[in-house]
Amino acid sequence: MLQAIHNKLDELYPEMVDIRRYLHQYPEVSFQETKTAQYIADYYEKLGIPYEKNIGGNGVIATLTGGKPGKTVALRADFDALPIQDEKDVPYRSKVDGVMHACGHDGHTASLLTLAKTMKGFQDELPGTILFLHQHAEEYAPGGAKPIIESGALDDVDAVFGTHLWATTPLGVLQTSKDVFMAGPDRFDITVQGQGGHGGYPHETKDAITIGSQLVSQLQQIVSRRLDPLKTAVISIGQFEAGDAFNVIADKAKLVGTVRYLDKDVQDQVMKEMEKIIKGICVANDATYTFNYEKGYPPLVNHAEEAELVLKASENVQAIHTAEEVKPVMAGEDFAYYTMEKPGAYFFTGAQKEGNPYPHHHPMFDIDERAIPTAAKTLIAAYFEYQKQ
Amino acid sequence: MLQAIHNKLDELYPEMVDIRRYLHQYPEVSFQETKTAQYIADYYEKLGIPYEKNIGGNGVIATLTGGKPGKTVALRADFDALPIQDEKDVPYRSKVDGVMHACGHDGHTASLLTLAKTMKGFQDELPGTILFLHQHAEEYAPGGAKPIIESGALDDVDAVFGTHLWATTPLGVLQTSKDVFMAGPDRFDITVQGQGGHGGYPHETKDAITIGSQLVSQLQQIVSRRLDPLKTAVISIGQFEAGDAFNVIADKAKLVGTVRYLDKDVQDQVMKEMEKIIKGICVANDATYTFNYEKGYPPLVNHAEEAELVLKASENVQAIHTAEEVKPVMAGEDFAYYTMEKPGAYFFTGAQKEGNPYPHHHPMFDIDERAIPTAAKTLIAAYFEYQKQ
Amino acid sequence: MLQAIHNKLDELYPEMVDIRRYLHQYPEVSFQETKTAQYIADYYEKLGIPYEKNIGGNGVIATLTGGKPGKTVALRADFDALPIQDEKDVPYRSKVDGVMHACGHDGHTASLLTLAKTMKGFQDELPGTILFLHQHAEEYAPGGAKPIIESGALDDVDAVFGTHLWATTPLGVLQTSKDVFMAGPDRFDITVQGQGGHGGYPHETKDAITIGSQLVSQLQQIVSRRLDPLKTAVISIGQFEAGDAFNVIADKAKLVGTVRYLDKDVQDQVMKEMEKIIKGICVANDATYTFNYEKGYPPLVNHAEEAELVLKASENVQAIHTAEEVKPVMAGEDFAYYTMEKPGAYFFTGAQKEGNPYPHHHPMFDIDERAIPTAAKTLIAAYFEYQKQ
Amino acid sequence: MLQAIHNKLDELYPEMVDIRRYLHQYPEVSFQETKTAQYIADYYEKLGIPYEKNIGGNGVIATLTGGKPGKTVALRADFDALPIQDEKDVPYRSKVDGVMHACGHDGHTASLLTLAKTMKGFQDELPGTILFLHQHAEEYAPGGAKPIIESGALDDVDAVFGTHLWATTPLGVLQTSKDVFMAGPDRFDITVQGQGGHGGYPHETKDAITIGSQLVSQLQQIVSRRLDPLKTAVISIGQFEAGDAFNVIADKAKLVGTVRYLDKDVQDQVMKEMEKIIKGICVANDATYTFNYEKGYPPLVNHAEEAELVLKASENVQAIHTAEEVKPVMAGEDFAYYTMEKPGAYFFTGAQKEGNPYPHHHPMFDIDERAIPTAAKTLIAAYFEYQKQ
Repeated sequence: MLQAIHNKLDELYPEMVDIRRYLHQYPEVSFQETKTAQYIADYYEKLGIPYEKNIGGNGVIATLTGGKPGKTVALRADFDALPIQDEKDVPYRSKVDGVMHACGHDGHTASLLTLAKTMKGFQDELPGTILFLHQHAEEYAPGGAKPIIESGALDDVDAVFGTHLWATTPLGVLQTSKDVFMAGPDRFDITVQGQGGHGGYPHETKDAITIGSQLVSQLQQIVSRRLDPLKTAVISIGQFEAGDAFNVIADKAKLVGTVRYLDKDVQDQVMKEMEKIIKGICVANDATYTFNYEKGYPPLVNHAEEAELVLKASENVQAIHTAEEVKPVMAGEDFAYYTMEKPGAYFFTGAQKEGNPYPHHHPMFDIDERAIPTAAKTLIAAYFEYQKQ
Repeated sequence: MLQAIHNKLDELYPEMVDIRRYLHQYPEVSFQETKTAQYIADYYEKLGIPYEKNIGGNGVIATLTGGKPGKTVALRADFDALPIQDEKDVPYRSKVDGVMHACGHDGHTASLLTLAKTMKGFQDELPGTILFLHQHAEEYAPGGAKPIIESGALDDVDAVFGTHLWATTPLGVLQTSKDVFMAGPDRFDITVQGQGGHGGYPHETKDAITIGSQLVSQLQQIVSRRLDPLKTAVISIGQFEAGDAFNVIADKAKLVGTVRYLDKDVQDQVMKEMEKIIKGICVANDATYTFNYEKGYPPLVNHAEEAELVLKASENVQAIHTAEEVKPVMAGEDFAYYTMEKPGAYFFTGAQKEGNPYPHHHPMFDIDERAIPTAAKTLIAAYFEYQKQ
Repeated sequence: MLQAIHNKLDELYPEMVDIRRYLHQYPEVSFQETKTAQYIADYYEKLGIPYEKNIGGNGVIATLTGGKPGKTVALRADFDALPIQDEKDVPYRSKVDGVMHACGHDGHTASLLTLAKTMKGFQDELPGTILFLHQHAEEYAPGGAKPIIESGALDDVDAVFGTHLWATTPLGVLQTSKDVFMAGPDRFDITVQGQGGHGGYPHETKDAITIGSQLVSQLQQIVSRRLDPLKTAVISIGQFEAGDAFNVIADKAKLVGTVRYLDKDVQDQVMKEMEKIIKGICVANDATYTFNYEKGYPPLVNHAEEAELVLKASENVQAIHTAEEVKPVMAGEDFAYYTMEKPGAYFFTGAQKEGNPYPHHHPMFDIDERAIPTAAKTLIAAYFEYQKQ
Repeated sequence: MLQAIHNKLDELYPEMVDIRRYLHQYPEVSFQETKTAQYIADYYEKLGIPYEKNIGGNGVIATLTGGKPGKTVALRADFDALPIQDEKDVPYRSKVDGVMHACGHDGHTASLLTLAKTMKGFQDELPGTILFLHQHAEEYAPGGAKPIIESGALDDVDAVFGTHLWATTPLGVLQTSKDVFMAGPDRFDITVQGQGGHGGYPHETKDAITIGSQLVSQLQQIVSRRLDPLKTAVISIGQFEAGDAFNVIADKAKLVGTVRYLDKDVQDQVMKEMEKIIKGICVANDATYTFNYEKGYPPLVNHAEEAELVLKASENVQAIHTAEEVKPVMAGEDFAYYTMEKPGAYFFTGAQKEGNPYPHHHPMFDIDERAIPTAAKTLIAAYFEYQKQ
């Protein structure tokens, strides 16, 4: 049956591309992805698969109960986009200014929708129950996974699987881990309050831009000097905003950024050292500050057994020539909450586009669309593998 | 006659306050100050003094020809505001979001308009001709003075005087200089082009925010290490803009700022050293850049004779208890163009408000309104002193 | 027999302490440790064990051929000290100004010498041959291990074992790894050439101290921004030397430091990025530079089988209550060359002194001397375990 | 008589060169210049002019009482050298390692000695009394001038004159000021106490070199951001010393430097801001510090009348074609104490050597020796001018 399903998915490839490109042109940022949710709901409506909307926010879950007994397994795809300007020169370029599917969630959605369409045709023979779990707001903490779990939607689920189309992994390669697979991603913002004034009179001000710049340089030394070099951490400042006029010294500077870590104690130490540096730099400059540190998703830890099962299932997917265990990646994922609740595993489906070297979250990001059916095939292969147990 | 004029100006004090507060509530930024220009034109319309609009842009010049022979003297007031959020808690607070008369040009305008109203009553006895020169766009190079001069409006003028209400100088104090009085203010913008990417993968990016921050710190060393300590220069970065999302490493950073100088050779050296530093920091980071340096107004140099004359005239202004020569101030002024064309002098009228320590261009800036009539009295006193020669 | 040997070692504990404390008071820096070498040679002379001096420099190797057949195994102890001022307040404090056994090599030597004395008493029953390998110059690349190997001294050796008394590991704990155990430690020096001059005339100079300080800050960003956060690297500048007089701007600054890495590609990338940063900072400051990067010892990789054998042998050492595999440590060790040539394993013998929190290479460094017999017991236990195979 | 004296000085030119070159080869640093003092004393011994040694330290004063009545005037030359390595390739290069006459005091001494020899021949006709004041330790605060004054040696002096051979002023040019002529030069040292340790374990240390480097960069912003741009200040760090070994993280860093200022309030503000920055940077890094600030000589303020007199006297010196008033220079001079006690003036004698662009205190510093007789001629011309009054 798996082969027949895979054949059907191959037939649906043109539709996958259409869905993906449609969504690519109409991206919506996290927590505001209502039209995309409606698009998904409409698709299930047409398929005649029962679904629920507004789960834990904009989440949509469709349930396909097979004709044969078996376990209940959730297959998850996220569908939100990012506040990035699409700079690709392609026909399916984003039509929304400053918003872009720069992480491939459009492909995840296309993959899961067409898998549902396919499986509808195999419903009678299907052992167990598939939950097609379309999750909103993966890109922005506190994320969609947590409220979906809290809504009770997964209470009867036995296991959860999910995949990410991964633009820096070649087509045909599957990657996963039997332990920590993805980092904990936190968010922070720092506002330095100096004193504004005329650009020609620096001595009558406390220049928030020079203070903020010192801070950026100093914060870099947490990773290089204060953390165990054998442990892993990233501190990136994504936004620096200060000043409104070229000839007015800015009274405040806002720095917003992210921390990535794999161990809880690293997270604790980074918070402590950041506060210490911010305080000291403000003492040196007679300035004051606010510092907000928002803990994001925890690190994503796969269950060894389910990860093993994904690796085994991939042997039945012709499009995959290599399945490998890899070191953790520094991106975060709120799939982490699912594996904290239920057995499960997350994996990457190689989607590197020839000639496009740009990573996720880049204005030029794109994927090789041939990875979309591969993702669907692997998810359903894992589903069947899981039912065997 | 001067005493009678001064008495009349005292009578008009309530109207001065009204005009100033009205303009304070409806500020307009440089080159967009059309409603303010119309307000001024309407005032002369009502007074019955002939005027011309749209001179060199939004400039307005009214001409009052006296009944007695004499020289033609322009008295100048500027009327544009700044892109600053008014944070004062006063009834006359700006009603325009993000725009504020944070430099006192509202008071300059109130002073000159009520002086015109006063002088209309003394027209018959007046020796010579007064040009009431209302200049737009002083705050933003290339400024309004240059196009007004280029329009030919000052061709027949013998001398030009102007004053600035100065919030850091006490009430009753007049300040001027017989040589360089105000700095040359230039504008620059630097765009550092790195490479954007995912916040957890710094090694796949060139982080424009860390590069920009290095630049801010390095540029400070031009003043402290590379310029003659006996010469004067300021390099202030007023804006630092980079990044759109906390978890995306910014691909570019924009730094916009101002340079202040008193000598041409300092200006040349600053430009050269800035370029060198920007280039080197980009080499160190494998980044590229654009660097635009816009030369602003030249330093404002008073004519010794006219400055002397202002000091002497101030003895006839009761409200002034101290008239002093001061070192140059680091603010720029496009009044500089007038004294490059014609004899003239610029001076400060002390306008410090008790309990308000905030300098020009600060969100809390304010003036003591009693300085408005003092400014008018001194300008007309200088006018009469000039006619004596 | 092992128990009898261990008992004998316990008896020799007072002598171990005497030897260690004597050496502690008369430390010699790497490649100049001639008196220490002579001390070791004299000891073997008295024991009547044949030895050779000046092997590959100041190395000393004594050979004890057992009465029974067996393999030849080298047991290695290093004996050089560091250019650090001893700041401990103890009777055995270093009597040499600025030189200190701040890494425990005095203890290594005491351990191996008394083990030799012990084994001399068991010579007839001993299977195989023990090489007591006293190595000079471990602390300073190119080190003593390489020339000792090149001298052919180990040609007939079947395996090599060695241990380090480790001050941050508790007494009774043994640590090792079956793979990379210690980092590659490189050395670099950078000389920034600016232009000197009078302290009051910075603009006529190129201030090497401000340039060098920029360099220190920038180099920190290689680890935090340019290397894969999942890989391990340390860049530490240990010396900053510039200037001779408070009122003379320094014409050059010398920065000397170390790089630690576990992967060859990290080493390559660090070298490349360092050069790029140094070059860029010099461009920004019109300065020139020299940059010497000396590759040090390669990472120390244990042989899995020999490491396993050490873990097993430790079960026969009463003083060890815990034997564990650990992550690599960032210190380097030229023991790396031995395991590149011969099967072997290196391990840490816990030597933490109660109440002394100071790490290796610290002016207050000290060890718990009770670890010295433990080191000897474990080495000989590993020797016997190896002979069983 | 002045012409005859000048002619005699021209005759002595070869001796001047000999003396200067001898002293150049045997320089002694401040407060240790005993051999130079003895050389001077021996010279007066041979001349038969009475002198006293060890005045206020190593000072030597010879007194020539003229045959005619007149006032008592001190002519001062300093004679100490600097801890700088002479890097010139000339026959008279310093023979003392690391010590150099890099400021021209050798020339001052040659000038004053040969002037004394000359004047001995004119003693009978001489009006008044000349004190040949050879001062030690000008280069290092607290300097020699203060103890010489405190010794009472100048109690009967009516006026003091002195000159500096100035390498950046062309031959034939005399420069002085009627007000502040030279800056106040202070000395400071900062010791940052971090925590030392192994170079591969930065997280177990507090790296004094990265902390010290941050400090260097931050301190630069006092001049660029915190002081009135119209005021003058220099903060230069002349020495940065930290660490003894490439692979040991330094526990402390020592920064030693100088501050130059012209106004007392700038001195006060610099001290306050330095403390603030040092404190803040140490807070940010969990480090501690000591900060010593030693106030040096006050700014040197010439008496207007005596400066005027020097300018006038220079008209009688053929070798001077230009005598000009200049802005203050940023070097300090303990001649400042003389003009605080007695009327007097200090001036520069142009001594620029063709093809040698190096400033004072540079390893390549040199003077045009033809300036030595010019210095002597001007001093004696000023002496005679003073006697006329």
